[in-house]
Amino acid sequence: MTAVNPRVASLLYEVAPGTQVDVSGWVRSRRDSKGGFSFIELNDGSCMSNLQIIVDADVPNYEDSIKDVTTGASVRVTGELKESPGAKQRVEMQAKTLEVLGTADAESYPLQKKRHSFEFLREIAHLRPRTNTFGAIARVRNCVCRAIHDFFQERGFLNVQTPIITTSDCEGAGEMFTVTTLPPSTDGKPVDYTQDFFGKHASLTVSGQLEGEIYATAVGPIYTFGPTFRAENSHTTRHLAEFWMVEPEVPFCDLDGNMQLAEDFIKTIVRRCLDECAEDMQFFNDRIDKTVLETMNNILEHEFKRISYTEAVELILNSGKEWEYPVSWGSNLQAEHEKWLTEEHFKQPIIVFDYPRSIKPFYMYCNEDGKTVRAMDVLVPGVGEIIGGSQREHRLDVLEARFQECGLDPEEYWWYLDLRRYGSVPHAGFGLGLERMILLLTGMQNIRDVIPFPRTPNNAEF
Amino acid sequence: MTAVNPRVASLLYEVAPGTQVDVSGWVRSRRDSKGGFSFIELNDGSCMSNLQIIVDADVPNYEDSIKDVTTGASVRVTGELKESPGAKQRVEMQAKTLEVLGTADAESYPLQKKRHSFEFLREIAHLRPRTNTFGAIARVRNCVCRAIHDFFQERGFLNVQTPIITTSDCEGAGEMFTVTTLPPSTDGKPVDYTQDFFGKHASLTVSGQLEGEIYATAVGPIYTFGPTFRAENSHTTRHLAEFWMVEPEVPFCDLDGNMQLAEDFIKTIVRRCLDECAEDMQFFNDRIDKTVLETMNNILEHEFKRISYTEAVELILNSGKEWEYPVSWGSNLQAEHEKWLTEEHFKQPIIVFDYPRSIKPFYMYCNEDGKTVRAMDVLVPGVGEIIGGSQREHRLDVLEARFQECGLDPEEYWWYLDLRRYGSVPHAGFGLGLERMILLLTGMQNIRDVIPFPRTPNNAEF
Repeated sequence: MTAVNPRVASLLYEVAPGTQVDVSGWVRSRRDSKGGFSFIELNDGSCMSNLQIIVDADVPNYEDSIKDVTTGASVRVTGELKESPGAKQRVEMQAKTLEVLGTADAESYPLQKKRHSFEFLREIAHLRPRTNTFGAIARVRNCVCRAIHDFFQERGFLNVQTPIITTSDCEGAGEMFTVTTLPPSTDGKPVDYTQDFFGKHASLTVSGQLEGEIYATAVGPIYTFGPTFRAENSHTTRHLAEFWMVEPEVPFCDLDGNMQLAEDFIKTIVRRCLDECAEDMQFFNDRIDKTVLETMNNILEHEFKRISYTEAVELILNSGKEWEYPVSWGSNLQAEHEKWLTEEHFKQPIIVFDYPRSIKPFYMYCNEDGKTVRAMDVLVPGVGEIIGGSQREHRLDVLEARFQECGLDPEEYWWYLDLRRYGSVPHAGFGLGLERMILLLTGMQNIRDVIPFPRTPNNAEF
Repeated sequence: MTAVNPRVASLLYEVAPGTQVDVSGWVRSRRDSKGGFSFIELNDGSCMSNLQIIVDADVPNYEDSIKDVTTGASVRVTGELKESPGAKQRVEMQAKTLEVLGTADAESYPLQKKRHSFEFLREIAHLRPRTNTFGAIARVRNCVCRAIHDFFQERGFLNVQTPIITTSDCEGAGEMFTVTTLPPSTDGKPVDYTQDFFGKHASLTVSGQLEGEIYATAVGPIYTFGPTFRAENSHTTRHLAEFWMVEPEVPFCDLDGNMQLAEDFIKTIVRRCLDECAEDMQFFNDRIDKTVLETMNNILEHEFKRISYTEAVELILNSGKEWEYPVSWGSNLQAEHEKWLTEEHFKQPIIVFDYPRSIKPFYMYCNEDGKTVRAMDVLVPGVGEIIGGSQREHRLDVLEARFQECGLDPEEYWWYLDLRRYGSVPHAGFGLGLERMILLLTGMQNIRDVIPFPRTPNNAEF
């Protein structure tokens, strides 16, 4: 056996009819013809389509083997690839040998050929990648990951691994999990973390940005791509306790450059998925959300409209709409406002920039107006905020004043301040949540369905 | 400012003399000539070499600016790229404007132009990527990461993100960190984990293999590439509490296919680094370990010798050598044995396979001899074990017997057993520790120096 067998995708779309082939995979369905032969629909995850295999009764051990060829069973088949008489597919396969590698009992196998609810499939997350929807999500997710790496590598960014376990706190990003080798207890007594593994209180990171800035101000543009964590007791369809985030950081870059990078980035990912996962994207458009392809084209066709937070607030105030959360200058934009801006007012992706400094973290560049910081959010129709970023405050004196304003202890950030003390440069960066991007691309509604093994309150099974 | 400025590497090796350029970076050194002009050695992390910039006294504000052009300062320079009169480099730059972006006080900046010990640099991990050695490590690390993704993507493997927080335990792989939102305490009272965030005891993963098998037996070959953790109180130069691991998993693949994949994988990474990081690899050979390039060529030139564990033990027993740890069939091979096999006996990389089942985990395929399992270790001269892997036990009855033999509760692994219950297929995979690979490539001696921010007992700073 070779490490990589020929795959169904290449048999369906590349290999010439007449070729002798050897294929392995899982049975999606079998039907027996009265003429004494059977059709197998075989899938191996390389694409959504199945390879149709005709197994005549004269294949050795036909009678013995075919009864085990049930939905979910694994088989190895050798035979000849032939032009298909049907219009549906280019080729089919005529079996010469058939071997059942692993059976799947028709009574107990949970994935019989019918529609299952996503809620049910979440309980069998070890089997759901064998379904059409979750196979397609796995392929799109892979395509996005590949596009992320290619995008940055082609532009000379270095991939840097920032730490997962951290003793610092990227302020305001959210609640953190404790990492410990001490036995937890619920008696509420004070804890002596000096006895713990790291000699102090350690947590799971909420962002690699601050460490990313270290590398960006040493080796040039970098990106991190790894898991991040939030210990929030959140039960929405948009939040996970563990998710993947990509965070580029670029020296000698201001907010304009950052906005351009973010726009190019989103468009590149969308284009790659449309090109390389065409069959899967069509499936999502047909079966999950009929607006997916329209949304993708909207993203590709428009230059992202850039408006300041102040302009955005004015538009919302002048909209004549009734809002659940009224807006005034200085308040956060809510999902309803972002939705109206992208879906009703502009009808395209927008970038909102220059937010009030009072609602943004310490590390963002303070504008001369004394009221705003160089923050930006990329908002797209369908999912709302997809990217958040900023130009960073690189002026030592301004940053020190901001620490005081935010009530933070500069001692805790001694190394972050050192970056401003020695050879400081203007720099900027942003964060994209991988799962939010997959939601956008697939039209899936629940973030638990676009990550292989979701972690949410009371759920870390598998 | 654009998101990506022209980089020093492209100016040095690609851009034509005569071109007007605009470059930003950090000053490695400056020297002033008596003729009233200065030389700046500028680095921006894109390569090890510096761009030499000549700043004449007639550059605007020369007197004011040049005094701040000290080691570590950041500058932006515009001017003309010119052929270099010296033999050392193709081009140099003649400055027309010079702007100091950020100063670096010569008294206090820790990285003055001299050699610093790696121990000292570990204490300023936020500045060490600005040195030659750590800049080179960052570039080689990036090259390896890129090669890993390309290697698997070109072969049709999907990149899958397995969970970091887990409630299962990849048996025997090592001590685990607890992840909790409960306050830890040291009073030793029993803990009610049902009150914790996930409703049960949760840990940081030691391997994504078991979850990787889920995807490999659904969508075809996959690889994971992410952080893994060991809560071992280990203070060696080879162990980290947090490190990155790549783990491919391949369906319809046996141990032979697995060994071939591992060999191709190592060779591809080595070749990519030699090709794409030639300057950095030469630096490691010149300054860190004079055998690095020889070791790399040894890896590329040899077919990895495959010998069984039983043969390896016989060779060691017949070597006539005195060992600190005597070997007998059934015992683990120690570093001294592996070193002798690769460096003295075979003088090339080897793969040892078919280890005693008593010293290997439950998931490895049991051979017919009743004594061994289809495990493999790839051993290379210089660093010893670089890859460990196995064909997995895919036969339900054999696996269930192994659970009993190992004293494991099959209930805890219900979903892992389901993979054998429904459409089970032969499959295999391995794990490569990213940092071990970087040690091999760079000749660096301490694993804390090849990861950006090392986590070890009592150390999670930055």
